[in-house]
Amino acid sequence: MSNIVNIATSLDGYISDKDDGLDWLDLIPNPDRLDFGWADFMNRIDAMVMGRKTFEKVCSFDCDWPYTKPVFVLSRSLELLPEEYKGKAEIIEGPLSEVLQTIKAKGYEHLYIDGGVTVQSFLKEDLIDEMIITVIPVLLGGGTPLFAELPEQIEFECMESQVFLNSLVQTQYRRKK
Amino acid sequence: MSNIVNIATSLDGYISDKDDGLDWLDLIPNPDRLDFGWADFMNRIDAMVMGRKTFEKVCSFDCDWPYTKPVFVLSRSLELLPEEYKGKAEIIEGPLSEVLQTIKAKGYEHLYIDGGVTVQSFLKEDLIDEMIITVIPVLLGGGTPLFAELPEQIEFECMESQVFLNSLVQTQYRRKK
Repeated sequence: MSNIVNIATSLDGYISDKDDGLDWLDLIPNPDRLDFGWADFMNRIDAMVMGRKTFEKVCSFDCDWPYTKPVFVLSRSLELLPEEYKGKAEIIEGPLSEVLQTIKAKGYEHLYIDGGVTVQSFLKEDLIDEMIITVIPVLLGGGTPLFAELPEQIEFECMESQVFLNSLVQTQYRRKK
Repeated sequence: MSNIVNIATSLDGYISDKDDGLDWLDLIPNPDRLDFGWADFMNRIDAMVMGRKTFEKVCSFDCDWPYTKPVFVLSRSLELLPEEYKGKAEIIEGPLSEVLQTIKAKGYEHLYIDGGVTVQSFLKEDLIDEMIITVIPVLLGGGTPLFAELPEQIEFECMESQVFLNSLVQTQYRRKK
């Protein structure tokens, strides 16, 4: 089983800006609409785990539901998802170790872990196996940080690093065991 | 005139760990003692500007004075440096714009800006032209952050990115004008 983060951050480590906005993700012109490995990544994973806040943000986007894999929404406050998300997303709750057992029992092995709070919760329990981090060359100067305090240092190995559009540095890290 | 940052950070953006330590900088074995471009960089710059805390840290290292270029120590509290640093380092104070005018008047054009507080002060006034950031693949989970809150977003361009020892991602950014 592997839990994988795939996320874009600013140079100063934020995943959304001071106004909770994401406009800075489009700072670099992408005329050929490169996907920066996104389709390959989505093929690799079996399911997604995201927090309630990220789920609601995705729902607010002015586009169709963007995921083809099952989505598990970690939430203690939501009881039901709107009917339109039936078959796409479901709520899951409990300690992360139990959540992962439940998901694995459904046959999903490779999980895409998304959203700041969720990634931080997984890291606090050293449950992240891989991180693909794409750095946008801007200092936002504030916003929602990707990382938070941790009880212990966590070492990773750098597997690959590439530059897209002469601008975005995408690096793949794997937990060093 | 260009003001250049060249610094190593953890994956979560810290420049020293929770105990103010730097041991994590040596996590990656470097048997051939690669310098990651350090000598070339030191040849490029004319002088250094660092804060008092960084100066005192460098003085505490169990080695000879490591710099061959003049060092300006930003400090409001220090009045005199110990005699042994005469000809190596001098104190400078005042608003950064005046500090830079003073240094430039002495004939120094390309400045290496070092130390967390100093880098943050320069960035707050949008006075950094270039940043060379080397990311060590470890989450420290706390410590001294490289970046701080900023009044405005600051855009950079990615000039080059390379991986050293299959582990360290070093990226050179230039202020986008």
